[in-house]
Formats: sequence, C-alpha cells, structure tokens
Amino acid sequence: MSATPLYLGVIGVGGVGAAFLSQLARLPNAPSLVLLARSTQTLLSPAPSYSPAIPAADWQTASSTPSLTKSGSLSPQEIASYLSAAPGRSILVDNTSDPALASAYPVFLRAGISIVTPNKKGFSSDLSLWKDIFAAAAEGKALVYHESTVGAGLPVISTLRDLVATGDEVTRIEGVFSGTLSFLFNTFAPVSSSGASASWSAVVAQAKELGYTEPDPRDDLNGMDVARKLTILARIAGLEVQAPDSFPIESLIPAELASLPSTPEGITQFMTRLPEFDGQMASLKESAEKAGKVVRYVGSIDVGKKEVRVGLQQFDKDSAIAGLKGSDNIISFYTKRYGANPLIVQGAGAGGDVTAMGVTADLIKVMERLR
Amino acid sequence: MSATPLYLGVIGVGGVGAAFLSQLARLPNAPSLVLLARSTQTLLSPAPSYSPAIPAADWQTASSTPSLTKSGSLSPQEIASYLSAAPGRSILVDNTSDPALASAYPVFLRAGISIVTPNKKGFSSDLSLWKDIFAAAAEGKALVYHESTVGAGLPVISTLRDLVATGDEVTRIEGVFSGTLSFLFNTFAPVSSSGASASWSAVVAQAKELGYTEPDPRDDLNGMDVARKLTILARIAGLEVQAPDSFPIESLIPAELASLPSTPEGITQFMTRLPEFDGQMASLKESAEKAGKVVRYVGSIDVGKKEVRVGLQQFDKDSAIAGLKGSDNIISFYTKRYGANPLIVQGAGAGGDVTAMGVTADLIKVMERLR
Repeated sequence: MSATPLYLGVIGVGGVGAAFLSQLARLPNAPSLVLLARSTQTLLSPAPSYSPAIPAADWQTASSTPSLTKSGSLSPQEIASYLSAAPGRSILVDNTSDPALASAYPVFLRAGISIVTPNKKGFSSDLSLWKDIFAAAAEGKALVYHESTVGAGLPVISTLRDLVATGDEVTRIEGVFSGTLSFLFNTFAPVSSSGASASWSAVVAQAKELGYTEPDPRDDLNGMDVARKLTILARIAGLEVQAPDSFPIESLIPAELASLPSTPEGITQFMTRLPEFDGQMASLKESAEKAGKVVRYVGSIDVGKKEVRVGLQQFDKDSAIAGLKGSDNIISFYTKRYGANPLIVQGAGAGGDVTAMGVTADLIKVMERLR
Repeated sequence: MSATPLYLGVIGVGGVGAAFLSQLARLPNAPSLVLLARSTQTLLSPAPSYSPAIPAADWQTASSTPSLTKSGSLSPQEIASYLSAAPGRSILVDNTSDPALASAYPVFLRAGISIVTPNKKGFSSDLSLWKDIFAAAAEGKALVYHESTVGAGLPVISTLRDLVATGDEVTRIEGVFSGTLSFLFNTFAPVSSSGASASWSAVVAQAKELGYTEPDPRDDLNGMDVARKLTILARIAGLEVQAPDSFPIESLIPAELASLPSTPEGITQFMTRLPEFDGQMASLKESAEKAGKVVRYVGSIDVGKKEVRVGLQQFDKDSAIAGLKGSDNIISFYTKRYGANPLIVQGAGAGGDVTAMGVTADLIKVMERLR
C-alpha cells in the first residue's frame, strides 16, 4: 500500500515474451523495466541509478534505446546481484522454458527477488527443487506466482490454491491439459463423426502445419508436457510427487519411431513413417465408438489414492471432456464442498497472448502485494 | 510483508456467516476477530487493547466467551469508529444481504477499513454507490473484494478483473447465474426428456421443498437476483449500468400473482395458484423442443452494444448451457484474446460452504496485501 519502488527484470522475448512485453507496455503503474534478456544478449539500466528504464516494447525498440548497458548472456547469479541491488523491491519474469534458469529460482528468492513465470520446469522437476523454491521464498520474503504453468491464462493454479487455502478437500482433478492433444483428438474422434474421417497421421500433419504442435510433434505426443502440469497440480493438492516421470505416462509415440533423432531429418522421417501406425489409433477409436464413447488424452489425479495418471481414456459422448472444441483445455476439480458436480474451468490453454495474460495478471498481484 | 497487526469485524451469522466462521477458525495466521454481530446483538473485544479476541467458532461459543463487551445493534458509523481505532489495519466481512450496511461501505473504506463480502447490494444498486465505494477505497487506501457476489466461490469476478486489468477486450458475457433457476430449468426441460415430465409448478414446489428457493419463490422467479449479478459484471467490464432494473428483465412471475403479499399466506396462495399457469410454461418448452432446443433462463452482456438482458432463451441441446447439471452456474467470457471459444467457469454457484469459500479466499488475499 506504501510507495515501495518496484524494479522488473524480464528474460525471454519469444512468443510469450513478446506478448508479455506488449501487455506490460500498456500496464498502468508498471514497475521500472531495468533488465531485458534474450538468449545471448542482455539490456540493463545503468547501475547504481537503475535509470533510465528500458521501454517495454519489442526487443528491437528496447535494444536501440541509448544509454542502456548492453552485455552478453548473464548468469542467474549475476542477474540476481544486479536486481537485488536495485533501490526497491525486484521482480523477475521468466518467459523462457529453460530448466537451468528455473533451477536458480531459489537464488533469486533468497535475495528477495519475486518470481513470476509460465516456465513449468521449476515446479515440475525434482521435488527437492519445488521444496527449495518455496522455502527460499519464505526466507527471502519474496513471492512466487506461476498461473500460466497450467492452462495458460485460465484460472487453474489460483483456483486450486484458493480451494486448498480455505480448507476444502480436493479429492480428484481431471482434464485435458494440452491444447495440441485436445485438437488432435477433437479432430480425430469428434463426438458427431459424419462420414469419412481423417487418419491419425493426417491429423498430426495438419496440426503440425497449423503450428499447433512443437517443431518435433513427439514433444507433444510423449505426454511429458501434460505430466509436468499434473505434477504441479498434484503437489499443490498436497501429494509429494517426486518427479514428472514417477507415475504412469502413456506415450503416443510408436516405440519404433521413438529413437529417430530430433533433427529436421529425424522429424521428417517420423512424419513419413507415422501412417504405418494409423491402424492402431483407428482401432482405439473404433473400440470406443462401439461402447458409444470417444477416446481422449487426459490427465487425472486421485488425491486420496495418491495416484497420478496421464494417457488415453474413453468418455461418454455427452460428457464435458468429449464436447471440448478446438484446442481448448478443460480442468475439473472435484472437492468435498463442491460435491458431485465439479468446479470446471475451460478455454484456450495455449497461445502467446493468453499465456502472457496469466503472467501479466500474476505480475499485477505481485505488485499489489509488494507495494 | 511486514507484520502489520490485522483486526477483523464480521457481521452476519446466517448460512454463509456460520460457514465462514468455521473456515476462519481453521485459517492459519488469521486476523484477530474483534467484532462479531448478528441482527440485534454485537460482541466486541474490549477497547483500547482489542483483546482478548473473539473465538472464531459459532455464535453460541463466541457469545459465551467471558470478558467480551456485549451490546445491541451498532450503527455502521459506530462499527467503523470501533474498527478504525484498532492498533493496526482492519477488515470488515459483511455476510449479510443488508442494503443499509452496503450503502455504508464508503464510510468504512474512507476510514481505512477494507471490505470483504458476498453481499451484492453495494455493487448492484445505484451507480453512484458503486463509484463512491471505489473512490472511498482509493482515498482510504483500503481494499474491496467481493468474489462471492457472483457465482459464489467460483472464480468469476477475479477472472473478469484479470481479463480487464491485463488489457483484454471482453466482448460478451453469457451464462446461467442462478442456482435456483438452473435447477428449475434443468429439471423442467432436461436435454434428454424421457417420457412424462413434471409440470412447471410441480418443479417449483419440489425446489421449494428442497430449500433451493428463497422462502418466497417469487424472489427467485422475478429475475432480480440475476439482474444484480449482471449489473456487477457489466460494470467491471466497463458499462455504466445505472441500476439493476435499467435493462430488460423477464420475470417468471405470472402478472396475476405478482401482487399477492409476501406473507406466509400470500406465498401459500401463490403456490396454490401457480398450476393455473403451467400451460404457458409448457408451450414455451414445446416450442423450443420443436426447434430441437431447450429453454433456459440466462443473463447476457453485449459489451460493444452496451446491452444487458436477463430472461428466457433457447439453446442447442449440445451446448454447454443446455448440458448444465443440478443447480450449477456457468459463465462464459468471450474476449478478443480467447477468440471464438470462450473462457468458461462452471460449478455450484450457491450454498453456504462454497459462498463462504469465496469470502475466505478474498480475506486471505486482503491479508496478503495488507501485511
């Protein structure tokens, strides 16, 4: 509530990073942007005055601003020293998916620097890092907000934290957590299938062309992205998940194609050979249809049984999960207070603008708490 | 982040109030409860020490605690003086639906007392009160949180505020905002109608017996509760709605029964005569069915056209609104960033425990910002 000056460092100017900077540029009473970094370059407001601030626009505008200090890539320790010496409270926004940076969060937090990020790595890797992050935040009286690590800008993390903090008992969490896999199955096995439908490999190829998959579609099909999101939610719900691969994850990559290299040639080979396996996916789809159902790729957490699962499951055609559209996510929270009908959050769970929105909304909350 | 002592006054010990007190009792680092009031009685921690604190349990336990000051009903001004003289920051939780108390929010806020409440009256009455509340909060450096005024504990207000604050353009909001009307239509006109179904009056009688309606069901059927919720959302979305009756509201009370008094006798007479109008509702249902649709009672806000509407509408049977279960609410936010598929929040939108959860979650956020 007082007028503590706030300083902001931002790392990453990719899809989410660029969208975030444009939202930041329009934010009233935004903190001073004093550090902006991309892979090999860093812009800094000159110490010790930490002014002028870097204009929150795009990288090009920022980097052509005179009187900024320019350097190559800085280590997390160097960034933490720079930010913690600013004459106020500092916030680091990590818009990368870099595991090395994420593993340095405790360094920032112990130095009193708050963290806002859509980077899943810090919260979904070894349990020891998760514990260290929150212990460091308490020690440094710093804050950690990471709404966009699950469901992009959808209110998923905040809702789960509210349920837990107010004493509700979360019994089960279930949903479609990948925009890519949502699109693949909504297209491959729609509820109302009219006539001839596309093969699995054709749908994957279509999604790749539309830019809905990672450059290597196997990074979506292996289920690891979903597993990381489940790990985060399960930990907030109170389960001590050791690592994102310490529970069953059903991979959609045919074993025969798993070892192809992740080079452009390897990816081309993967896409070329994927049709060989269309029969397997077709029979999964047909067996669901015979039961009047559709197949979907979901994640689920049974809190009581301490079970986390990621994989294919059949759903009734009139269920909310079956009726999902486009590349939407859906997350259902079953709790003691909500009873038989879950609290449901649904909508786009990927994309630069909506992911950045979750980051910006978190930044606003951190600003409100630090001021 | 510092250790500012926090003091709490709570008014109202009805369904929501009682559930809130039991959640408060389990809250770590809760503020000192120093004032607890029901209609004609007030318990106070003795000034000037503001201790001992009142135990956050039920009214009975609280009122039998020795060394508390007991008095009759205090005026809002008296409560504000008492709370603002406490040696720290104060928060008032209003768990009533009292319009008089709500109209005094500016008094509390200008005195630096933050407000947390599920009471719709302050935010859905004259626009001048809405403006005065937020101006007073700014002047008094106090906070106002009211998540539970729409959709109980569902993340509706917070989601809309995040969308607006991060610069998204909200184009349309649509949904089922009344648990009572949700139950009535989900039961009266289910998507899969199998055989003979109950008449409208029978469904209303059933809902009344289950305690799903207000004591006088006309308080649900007149649509005013929905209109108040729409007023709040429209104002957050930027529309200057003058009053909750300054837009079209379709009442489900037959004109002939509107003037029956709201006494037990009047209510009985209303329920007795309601079957006379079953034909009207049956024909609405049938005309929807002929179009392959179902009828639902919804509220909608078209932000661009500055239009707010509350009333009956037909929906496709495979739409999310048609598929709603029990007494659930559903709220869809259409925005520029989310595109064709809206951000959807769904679940129980009424009930003591989930409404109190929204209040408790708000209280936690206020505590985090004031400390």
